[in-house]
Amino acid sequence: MEKLRIFVGFGAPPDVLAMLQAGTKGHQLVFPKKPASSVLAKAERDPQFATVDVAFGQPDPVAIAEAGQLKWIHVSSSGITRYATPEFRALMAQRRIVVSNSASVYNEACAAHALSFMLAQARKLPLALKSRAAGGTAAWHALRGSCGTLRGETVLIVGYGAIGKRLAELLRPSDVKIIAYRRNARGDEGVPVITEDQLTHALANEVDHIVNILPESAETRHFFDGTRLATIKPGAIFYNIGRGTTVDQDALLEALRSGRIAAAWLDVTEPEPLPDDHPLWAQPNCFITPHVAGGHADEAKTLVRHFLKNLDCFVRGEPLLDRVM
Amino acid sequence: MEKLRIFVGFGAPPDVLAMLQAGTKGHQLVFPKKPASSVLAKAERDPQFATVDVAFGQPDPVAIAEAGQLKWIHVSSSGITRYATPEFRALMAQRRIVVSNSASVYNEACAAHALSFMLAQARKLPLALKSRAAGGTAAWHALRGSCGTLRGETVLIVGYGAIGKRLAELLRPSDVKIIAYRRNARGDEGVPVITEDQLTHALANEVDHIVNILPESAETRHFFDGTRLATIKPGAIFYNIGRGTTVDQDALLEALRSGRIAAAWLDVTEPEPLPDDHPLWAQPNCFITPHVAGGHADEAKTLVRHFLKNLDCFVRGEPLLDRVM
Repeated sequence: MEKLRIFVGFGAPPDVLAMLQAGTKGHQLVFPKKPASSVLAKAERDPQFATVDVAFGQPDPVAIAEAGQLKWIHVSSSGITRYATPEFRALMAQRRIVVSNSASVYNEACAAHALSFMLAQARKLPLALKSRAAGGTAAWHALRGSCGTLRGETVLIVGYGAIGKRLAELLRPSDVKIIAYRRNARGDEGVPVITEDQLTHALANEVDHIVNILPESAETRHFFDGTRLATIKPGAIFYNIGRGTTVDQDALLEALRSGRIAAAWLDVTEPEPLPDDHPLWAQPNCFITPHVAGGHADEAKTLVRHFLKNLDCFVRGEPLLDRVM
Repeated sequence: MEKLRIFVGFGAPPDVLAMLQAGTKGHQLVFPKKPASSVLAKAERDPQFATVDVAFGQPDPVAIAEAGQLKWIHVSSSGITRYATPEFRALMAQRRIVVSNSASVYNEACAAHALSFMLAQARKLPLALKSRAAGGTAAWHALRGSCGTLRGETVLIVGYGAIGKRLAELLRPSDVKIIAYRRNARGDEGVPVITEDQLTHALANEVDHIVNILPESAETRHFFDGTRLATIKPGAIFYNIGRGTTVDQDALLEALRSGRIAAAWLDVTEPEPLPDDHPLWAQPNCFITPHVAGGHADEAKTLVRHFLKNLDCFVRGEPLLDRVM
């Protein structure tokens, strides 16, 4: 077996490190001088990078261009924002570097997070958990009557990849109608797929819930801009578990203020966290969690387990899991 | 067609009333002098009650005993606490009065409420919605790592009726193991059913989530007492969307304080609401909504629609929907 030099770009607790070391016996792990603070943080450039075969983490794209030995990059997140440019894709194709991500590690948690948002909104949990209304009072009737279920509602999943597919599965028993938006329908979605020309009509006429899972890229920047947000059917709910940059937040704020969008649930913003004086914090129908949708206990171990499985594929010359380039 | 005198025990907004009147043409609606404040509130005794054929609402059990014409009671809630005594059952059997409830009206919302609790707990929404932690900080890692999914967890549904069954359906795609507890297994549960002698073992060894949907009765009072709560596997989560009286709240508080039960999510308490100085309000791992689990927009209309369907069954001599006695 060829001995691979594997660059690990992030710091990990001792038990996770031990797991990684045990699973990569026969290969050589290379650690940066300054490990990134989390698996989501961008690593700084490191001179050792030029000599490695495999990179696991969030390696610097410029360093990648300079790394002559590199054969495989395994990105430690589901999002691949830093790499999703035509230039980078072209470079990878030319250099024959394969790129995989960690989508499988985060899918389940992201889909569960999105569903938790949808149900917390339907059941008005933020209000209900603060209420001490006595049964039969006007406040109690108002709260009870404002609650709902998802039954019969239409859910549009924007950016229908692995997370969206899992969310659709979780939603199935709730008797909702699910529509997927993705640029290129592949035919394996299992739900009706619409493309850009049908989007405006769907938003204006059909959709009660918009779940945005778009990744960050030049094309998705402010995908939900003022014009698009203004087409949304009044009273719809907007959720974002993709990337903050895909939404024009000023326009979203305006739509929330006017009540056109009944509520927004955001796990991602631009920047993260929002500055303390950002008006979205104070907007009563806006609910924000700090980019934790993919989080789960033993996340680092699941991440390493997934990488080790993929390393096995790589060594055997089999197709990689979650290959993205 | 026999003209029925139908006692309607609760006040309803004009549109709901109009719907009820239109649907009961040919019969006579009888309204109390003092309508109850909500469909869940107990009606006061009313002299007209003695002459009616049908009662729709929460009629007074003593008045029922005196109502010589009564043939059918349609209870306007899912719970039938006031009527669930052996004496009342015997009286209904003897007098040949059939009793139905409105379980179908509330099932979907109750099951969705329970699932919203489970996912809000899994995704740590109460904390996450307050956090402004920046990615990579210790607080952020702690929050992210404390989140989870339901995958692989074991859920015990205690009091497995129509709501429990619907919850089991909603949970199905989450890859959980579901166990039902009910006094008398009927064989149509679709999930493993345990009875009282197996309960302690399951609570101590298997169960990660306890969803209590027990109704109120003499037998269920403090079903979850100190002894039973003390058998629960450390770290389990307790949910109550049944009735507050089925739990010894002092013992629950103690279990939450010690951390033996990791968190409690309660839609019902005893009394409702809890007094402002009740220590459960201040307990950081206790989350309380004010008996809104069955609530949904158009609840009153759904309730009336369900009653009218049942009236049709009654008039035709067909089996009643949601018959309970």
